Amino acid sequence: MEEKEAFDKYKNFSEWFRTIIMDAELVDTRYPVKGCYVWRPYGFKLRKYVLDIIKRLLNSTGHEEVLFPLLIPEDILGLEKEHIKGFEGEVYWVTHGGLRKLEKKLALRPTSETAMYSMFKKWVHSHADLPIKVYQIVNIFRYETKATKPLIRVREVTTFKEAHTVHATMEEAEKQVKEAVEIYSKFFDELGVPYIICRRPSFDKFAGAEYSIAFDTLMPDGRTMQIGTVHNLGQNFAKAFELTYEDVNGKHQFAYQTCYGISERVIAAIVAIHGDNRGAIFLPSIAPIQVVIVPIIYKGEEEKVLQQCRKVLDVLRQGGIRTFLDERDISPGRKFYDWEFRGIPVRVEIGPKDVANNQVTIVRRDTFERKTYSMGDLMTVVKEIFTEIEENLRKRAWEEFRKRIFRVKSLQEAREIIQNRRGIALIPWCESDECGLKMCEEVNGNVLGAVLSEDLANPAENEVCPICGRETKNMAAIAKTY
Amino acid sequence: MEEKEAFDKYKNFSEWFRTIIMDAELVDTRYPVKGCYVWRPYGFKLRKYVLDIIKRLLNSTGHEEVLFPLLIPEDILGLEKEHIKGFEGEVYWVTHGGLRKLEKKLALRPTSETAMYSMFKKWVHSHADLPIKVYQIVNIFRYETKATKPLIRVREVTTFKEAHTVHATMEEAEKQVKEAVEIYSKFFDELGVPYIICRRPSFDKFAGAEYSIAFDTLMPDGRTMQIGTVHNLGQNFAKAFELTYEDVNGKHQFAYQTCYGISERVIAAIVAIHGDNRGAIFLPSIAPIQVVIVPIIYKGEEEKVLQQCRKVLDVLRQGGIRTFLDERDISPGRKFYDWEFRGIPVRVEIGPKDVANNQVTIVRRDTFERKTYSMGDLMTVVKEIFTEIEENLRKRAWEEFRKRIFRVKSLQEAREIIQNRRGIALIPWCESDECGLKMCEEVNGNVLGAVLSEDLANPAENEVCPICGRETKNMAAIAKTY
Repeated sequence: MEEKEAFDKYKNFSEWFRTIIMDAELVDTRYPVKGCYVWRPYGFKLRKYVLDIIKRLLNSTGHEEVLFPLLIPEDILGLEKEHIKGFEGEVYWVTHGGLRKLEKKLALRPTSETAMYSMFKKWVHSHADLPIKVYQIVNIFRYETKATKPLIRVREVTTFKEAHTVHATMEEAEKQVKEAVEIYSKFFDELGVPYIICRRPSFDKFAGAEYSIAFDTLMPDGRTMQIGTVHNLGQNFAKAFELTYEDVNGKHQFAYQTCYGISERVIAAIVAIHGDNRGAIFLPSIAPIQVVIVPIIYKGEEEKVLQQCRKVLDVLRQGGIRTFLDERDISPGRKFYDWEFRGIPVRVEIGPKDVANNQVTIVRRDTFERKTYSMGDLMTVVKEIFTEIEENLRKRAWEEFRKRIFRVKSLQEAREIIQNRRGIALIPWCESDECGLKMCEEVNGNVLGAVLSEDLANPAENEVCPICGRETKNMAAIAKTY
Repeated sequence: MEEKEAFDKYKNFSEWFRTIIMDAELVDTRYPVKGCYVWRPYGFKLRKYVLDIIKRLLNSTGHEEVLFPLLIPEDILGLEKEHIKGFEGEVYWVTHGGLRKLEKKLALRPTSETAMYSMFKKWVHSHADLPIKVYQIVNIFRYETKATKPLIRVREVTTFKEAHTVHATMEEAEKQVKEAVEIYSKFFDELGVPYIICRRPSFDKFAGAEYSIAFDTLMPDGRTMQIGTVHNLGQNFAKAFELTYEDVNGKHQFAYQTCYGISERVIAAIVAIHGDNRGAIFLPSIAPIQVVIVPIIYKGEEEKVLQQCRKVLDVLRQGGIRTFLDERDISPGRKFYDWEFRGIPVRVEIGPKDVANNQVTIVRRDTFERKTYSMGDLMTVVKEIFTEIEENLRKRAWEEFRKRIFRVKSLQEAREIIQNRRGIALIPWCESDECGLKMCEEVNGNVLGAVLSEDLANPAENEVCPICGRETKNMAAIAKTY
C-alpha cells in the first residue's frame, strides 16, 4: 500500500508524473543516454495531435513549414556574439567523421537561428521577398548539467517547434511578436493549459534578442514551467549575418527578425495539469484513443454483448471517433483501471441490460459521471460529452491556476507565497534589472518578468517597487521555476 | 542560349536535376555543410504528401509510429559485430558537451537498429508482447567520402523512414519481409516510380542481416538508384542484444527481427522520372499545388476575369483541391513557364471568352493537352483529369523502364547494355558471391542481385551462369549504380 500512497499528484508530484508518463507508455526514460528518451506509440499519437493544433494555427497565419540541417559549423554558430555566449556552455560538438577528425567542428543545433539566417541571406534580396515566416519541428540538443527530467529538462529536446520571421521594419517585427503571442495563447487555450505572459527581465532574455516574452504555466508542485517564448531579435542577427534587403528606394537595409518556440514541455504540462490520482486525463481533441468500449460480460450472454460492442465501435469509428474495443480476457474493473490511467476521456460500458434496452452506459473520465443513453443518440451524445469534457478541463485548470496567483506588496509576502503556498506572487516592480536581481535573491525565487497578461494583473500604477521605492507601472511575477 | 541547352533531362541529367530541385525551390543545397541541405516550403509540402502515403500504408498494416533518440553510445552501437564493421567508417561522433569531453563518445545514428533494440529488450517479455511493428521518420547521418548529390547521396539523410519488427519465429519474420515488400511495391506504384526487386548478393547485404531485398529504380542517366530495402535480420541482433521472449512452454527464446527503410531518394526518383525538359511534373496526389489558375487579362476586362478566377478558386478549394490563383502582374506566358517548371499538374486559364461562355480552359502538364469545359462540370472534370494524369505518368514511367531492361546471355552483351544503352542487363546467375563479384569486375558495373520481380524476369531455368557454367535458377540484374 505504500507504493499506492506515493502516487499522489500534490503530495509527490515528481513520482506521480514519472509513473504516468512511463506506465501509460507515453515515453520510455530508460534509454541509455542521460536526458534522452523514447516516444512510444501511445505517446507519439498524443504528440501528433498536439502538434496538429500548432501546425493548423501557424499554417492559417501564413507560416510555412521547412526543414533545416542539424549540424551547424562552429564559425557560423559564433557569428552573433551574444548568442554564442549564451549557448557555448551547452553545445554538443561533432568532431569526428568515421575515423577522421573533421577540419571544422560541427555543433548539434541548440536552436536554429544561425543555421537559418545564413540561408535567409540568400533568399532575401528586395522588400518584395519579405516577410519570411517559416517554422520547423525538429530535435535540438542542450548539454544540460542540471538534473534532467523527462519532457521537462532534457538533453535531446525531441519536439522543438521553432518559428522564424524576417521583416522590413521594426513595426512589422513588433506586429509579428503580437501575432505570435496570440497564436500561442490560442494554442494553450485549446489545450486548457493556463499561462501567465511576462516580458522577461533583460538578464534572462534569449541570447541575442532585443527582448523576450514568455509563457509560464504552474505545475502541481508549485514551480512555474516556461512553455513558450517569443523573441524580438531586432537587427542583431541581421547585422551579424548581413541579412539585408533593398528597400523601395533602392537602398540596402538590415532586416528585422523575430523567433518563437515551444517544445514537448507543453505535453508535460498537459499531463501534469489535467491528470488526477487515477492517472492521466486527455482532452478528446488530443487523446490517442477518445472512446474505449468495455464489454460487461456474463456467462451465456457473451456473444450478444460483444455484437453490440462491435456495433458501437462501427458507429463511432464511422463518425470519425478514435475508438478502441477492449476484448481482453480480464475483468471489467481491471480494464476501467487501465484506461482511466491512460487518460481516455470517455468509456462506454455495454452489458446485457444495455443490450436489452438498446442503450449504452457512458462514463466521463474527468468527473466519473455515469449515465445511460439510447443507442440512437450515440454519436450526438459522445460529441456533446467531448465538448463538456473540454470545457470542464479548461475551466478547472484555469480556476486552480488563478487560485494560486497572489497579489502582494512586500517581499516577505512574496517569499511566503512561493515557499509555502505553491503559488506565483505578483509584486510591483520598477522593471530595472538591478531590483529584479535583488528580488530573486531576497525571495529565493525567480522573477519571471513584467506581467503582460492583463486579466491576471491590473496595471500597478501609483504603487512602488519594494526594492528601490520608485513608482511602478507594472507587476513582476515571482515564482520557483523549473 | 547555351545555358538553355544544358537543361536537358537525358543529355545532361545531373545539371537538369540540380536546376529543378533548386529553381523549383524544393531544396536549397547551398547550406554551408557538405552533404546537408534545406527543405524549402514548396519541397517540404511535396515531402509531406509523399510521407502521408507511406504512413497510411504502414498504419493500415498494424505499424505504429515512434521516435527514438538520435545519439547512440559507442558500446551499444558496437554490440552487433557485423553491423558496426559495416558502419564504423561513416559514423559521426559527438565527443564534447559544452567545453567538456564526454566520458563516452556518442554516435549520430547511421540507422536505428542498435538504439531501438536495446529498448525492445525492455518491452518484450513473453510471446504475448510479439509481434512489435514500429517505424519512425527521422534524420540519420553518414560521413560520405564519395561526392555528395542532393537527395541522393547526402551526409544528413533528412527523411529516413525506418520500420523495425520483432517476431517469435523465423516463419513470421519471413512473412513480415513479404508484407514489407508488398507495402513498398504499393508505395512506389502509387508514386509511379518503377522498380526492380532483387535479393542483394550477400557481399552487398545490410551489415548484420541474414539477407537483404532491395528496390532499385532507373534514373535518366542510366544508373540504378536503390530506393528501398527490406532486411531479414534473423536472430543476429536478438543475440547481440539479448532480446528474448518466454514462449508458451515457459522457455526463453531469441526473437527474430526484420527492418526496412526508404529515404528522400524516393523524391529524387519522382523528380527524375516524371519530369521533362520544361521542369518537374508532380502527380496530383503529391503536388503541393494541384491546380494553378492563370487569369488571361485584357485591358478593360480585368475585373470580370478576376471575379471568375476567384469563383473557380472557391469551387476548387471547397472541393478539397489545393489551388493557387496567380494574380502577379506579369505576363500569362511567364506564369505558364513558372508553374510548368514547378510541376503543377493542372492549369486553368480564364480569359474574357471563357467568362462570356461560362467555361474554363484546362491544360494538362503531362501532355499539354488543352480543352475547354463548362463551369458546371469543373469539379468532375478536374478530378477526372487528375486520374488521367496519374495513370498516364505511371504508364509512361513503366514503359520507359521496361524498354531499358534487357535480357542477355553473355557478359559482353551485359557490358554493352550498361555502358552504352543506359539500361539494366538481366543475365543468368548461379547466385554465388564468387561469380557475382567476377561479373561486377567483367562488366564494370554492379550486380544488384537475383531478380525477384517475376514480371521482369522469367525464371532462368535450364540456363547457365556465364562465369562458372553451372545451371541457374535465377537471373542477376546488372547495372551502373548510384
